[in-house]
Amino acid sequence: MKADTKYLWFNTKNRREYIRITDEVESFVQSSGITDGFVLVSAMHITAGIYVNDWENGLIQDIDDWLEKLAPVNPAYRHHRTGEDNGDAHLKRILINHQVTVPITSGKLDLGPWEQIFYAEFDGQRKKRVILKALGI
Amino acid sequence: MKADTKYLWFNTKNRREYIRITDEVESFVQSSGITDGFVLVSAMHITAGIYVNDWENGLIQDIDDWLEKLAPVNPAYRHHRTGEDNGDAHLKRILINHQVTVPITSGKLDLGPWEQIFYAEFDGQRKKRVILKALGI
Amino acid sequence: MKADTKYLWFNTKNRREYIRITDEVESFVQSSGITDGFVLVSAMHITAGIYVNDWENGLIQDIDDWLEKLAPVNPAYRHHRTGEDNGDAHLKRILINHQVTVPITSGKLDLGPWEQIFYAEFDGQRKKRVILKALGI
Repeated sequence: MKADTKYLWFNTKNRREYIRITDEVESFVQSSGITDGFVLVSAMHITAGIYVNDWENGLIQDIDDWLEKLAPVNPAYRHHRTGEDNGDAHLKRILINHQVTVPITSGKLDLGPWEQIFYAEFDGQRKKRVILKALGI
Repeated sequence: MKADTKYLWFNTKNRREYIRITDEVESFVQSSGITDGFVLVSAMHITAGIYVNDWENGLIQDIDDWLEKLAPVNPAYRHHRTGEDNGDAHLKRILINHQVTVPITSGKLDLGPWEQIFYAEFDGQRKKRVILKALGI
Repeated sequence: MKADTKYLWFNTKNRREYIRITDEVESFVQSSGITDGFVLVSAMHITAGIYVNDWENGLIQDIDDWLEKLAPVNPAYRHHRTGEDNGDAHLKRILINHQVTVPITSGKLDLGPWEQIFYAEFDGQRKKRVILKALGI
């Protein structure tokens, strides 16, 4: 049995960004030598998330609009009494979820034809980290 | 250590359907010979999801109404400029999530008394796939 | 390879409560002897959830308000025809999700600086259970 770990760093130009990371996760899995198992992809900061969906710019914009509608920027969050201004980002992370587990089969990510892994940044313009942890045979 | 993989196929009559798959996952776990570990259940198409909740028809209809309220069918999604008409299905998958990890203890699914595993189809009437991947001792 | 399992019990005073369980999960991981792998933390009752976010009381209240806004208490749920009155709790569990997988590195939870694990109770005042299952080397 093998386990392997890697950290990806992000520092986005914009406050909200959606970055495809399928290739980085695939490369990590290949370098791990694991042929059958799981790779966990998990955002380590609580105002960012990870999701698997379509690599289509219109849909990515739809997702951003939808997150903003359901978990809007709003100065009235109680969390802002601490001096923070990112209450919406904490809620958006909950909505989109902060992690995915991708199956590894024959040494590759076992994704469906349209599945792509995305890093979702909701409070960027600073250094933030994602953990990749693979476990298997 | 052992790993095992199986694919389930679905082709629903209706556009949206909720199908209990606990028994299929349980059978797979028993055939894998794994007595302690995890089984990942993950929808491989980006307009379907997997969730664990109650096997009660009223609640299933409540869930469907609620998903439609928060992520409605709407011709105005940018994604539809590609010719697709399933923007809502992509968002519903995000809301309900597309995967669960079920613990395996003593060779069985270690679920609570009311926990049942469901496949949630949001854009059906075509062949779609779910991966089951078990890892453990 | 090792696997280990523990169950946590909760019986909250209030119907809705958010309880930090990071220390309990960390202690379990240390007692398991696993140095590299995963620990699954999963609510076994279908009206409770598990999430990872900030340990800040204002934000916890924001999360509660937000869940109530998107998945409100409402006597009109079809599920209530069974005699239940907790339709909202089932939906809140879906929204916040019912499980997280935490990576284990060097025998410790590999969490970001602000990540804390919470048990989210949506229909308390009775005994309910969470499973901890660790798998790794």
